[in-house]
Amino acid sequence: MTEHNKPTLEVCLSPALLHLYDVKNSIVVIIDVLRATSTICTALYNGAAKIIPVASVEECVSIGRQLGAITAGERDGKIAEGLLHGNSPFEYPRDFIENKTIVLTTTNGTKLLHMAKDAIQIITGSFPNISAVCDYLVAQQQNVILGCAAWKDRVNMEDTLFAGAVVSRIKSHFHMNCDSALAAETLYNTAKPDVYKFMQGASHFQRLAKFGLEKDIRYCLTPDGANVLPLLKNGELIVG
Amino acid sequence: MTEHNKPTLEVCLSPALLHLYDVKNSIVVIIDVLRATSTICTALYNGAAKIIPVASVEECVSIGRQLGAITAGERDGKIAEGLLHGNSPFEYPRDFIENKTIVLTTTNGTKLLHMAKDAIQIITGSFPNISAVCDYLVAQQQNVILGCAAWKDRVNMEDTLFAGAVVSRIKSHFHMNCDSALAAETLYNTAKPDVYKFMQGASHFQRLAKFGLEKDIRYCLTPDGANVLPLLKNGELIVG
Repeated sequence: MTEHNKPTLEVCLSPALLHLYDVKNSIVVIIDVLRATSTICTALYNGAAKIIPVASVEECVSIGRQLGAITAGERDGKIAEGLLHGNSPFEYPRDFIENKTIVLTTTNGTKLLHMAKDAIQIITGSFPNISAVCDYLVAQQQNVILGCAAWKDRVNMEDTLFAGAVVSRIKSHFHMNCDSALAAETLYNTAKPDVYKFMQGASHFQRLAKFGLEKDIRYCLTPDGANVLPLLKNGELIVG
Repeated sequence: MTEHNKPTLEVCLSPALLHLYDVKNSIVVIIDVLRATSTICTALYNGAAKIIPVASVEECVSIGRQLGAITAGERDGKIAEGLLHGNSPFEYPRDFIENKTIVLTTTNGTKLLHMAKDAIQIITGSFPNISAVCDYLVAQQQNVILGCAAWKDRVNMEDTLFAGAVVSRIKSHFHMNCDSALAAETLYNTAKPDVYKFMQGASHFQRLAKFGLEKDIRYCLTPDGANVLPLLKNGELIVG
């Protein structure tokens, strides 16, 4: 296969840039490392039946009530008013979450997921499921957009680093002509020897550390702790 | 002075993200390394009286005719139809440009400049005038936004690297809480040993190299070849 017959691999650093990408002809990976997509794969890994991502707290409450499901989500890094559970992967161990449904809303991740609805396929990615994500993307042989959820549209370090980690693993299978992908990969290569330490300069690290969430951060930056593939089907995230 | 009394230093990686920043209370540095802002400082360094940045080719032609000025600009990296000069710094040596006025339009740089019109002050930055830019920013003690012109709103490597070079030089004078600034600085530190070589992976390098413009690229990545400060006053760029 020549270079130009390969599918493309691109990185979108903020939802506010997604309109520049050919979403319709691509698989989109939703990336919200701290902490939505890390928590999604963790809950599914621990046996959750499915996760329903919704945009607003109101929808979360109302669908949760209809289905008798667990309502979860945060606004500005804290459990949203009216919801029962937050956005920490440690809130969803197997003995709590097995066979249950979660309705989830987050500041950034669920918003991007809804923006990408015309994609060939939507999956979610984070360090805890990086191998499952990479294996899937290589196998599909479709164009890929690694979509960073960012923080209120501001580019953030953790999502960029994860995008870079994926680029570094799978780029030989793709055609790449995207400076954001090159930047993300270069940043990841710099951070790789100690991602946790590198992240200490980042804005969201400091925001979460104030809430005492260093343990969450460390888990969310560690590869393959919950190595399943969350796949969006009919508006629900299930194990692919 | 404590950390939080210092003015802020932020990087905006694309014009499509500028609405997220407090432009009104900041100095904005317009960065379009390949090649608009490199050419702007070069023409002023070589004695141009002033440069009038305009958004469209039509305006460029009409204002150029009114003033008897030199019309210059590119679209997609080539001289725009109807204009007489392009976007290469080598088109503006002293014996051609001294005391003359240029009306300039470019794909990305002039657009961002018009978007930032409410800033405290607009200046333009590029490697050929990096020291003048840094000295000015440190002296002003105002909030700073390093605004990358990008490529049709897509994040690009060269503008990001220049922003990173500025961050690395002046950050000790500012309060920084911006992942884009941290990313830009980290990328610049990686590229620094050989910026030209590092840039060979970037999309715009490949676009310009196809037109045989390696000499332009090398000049545009070299510090202080035209070390003046272009300052926007009443819609005109003059030496500050």
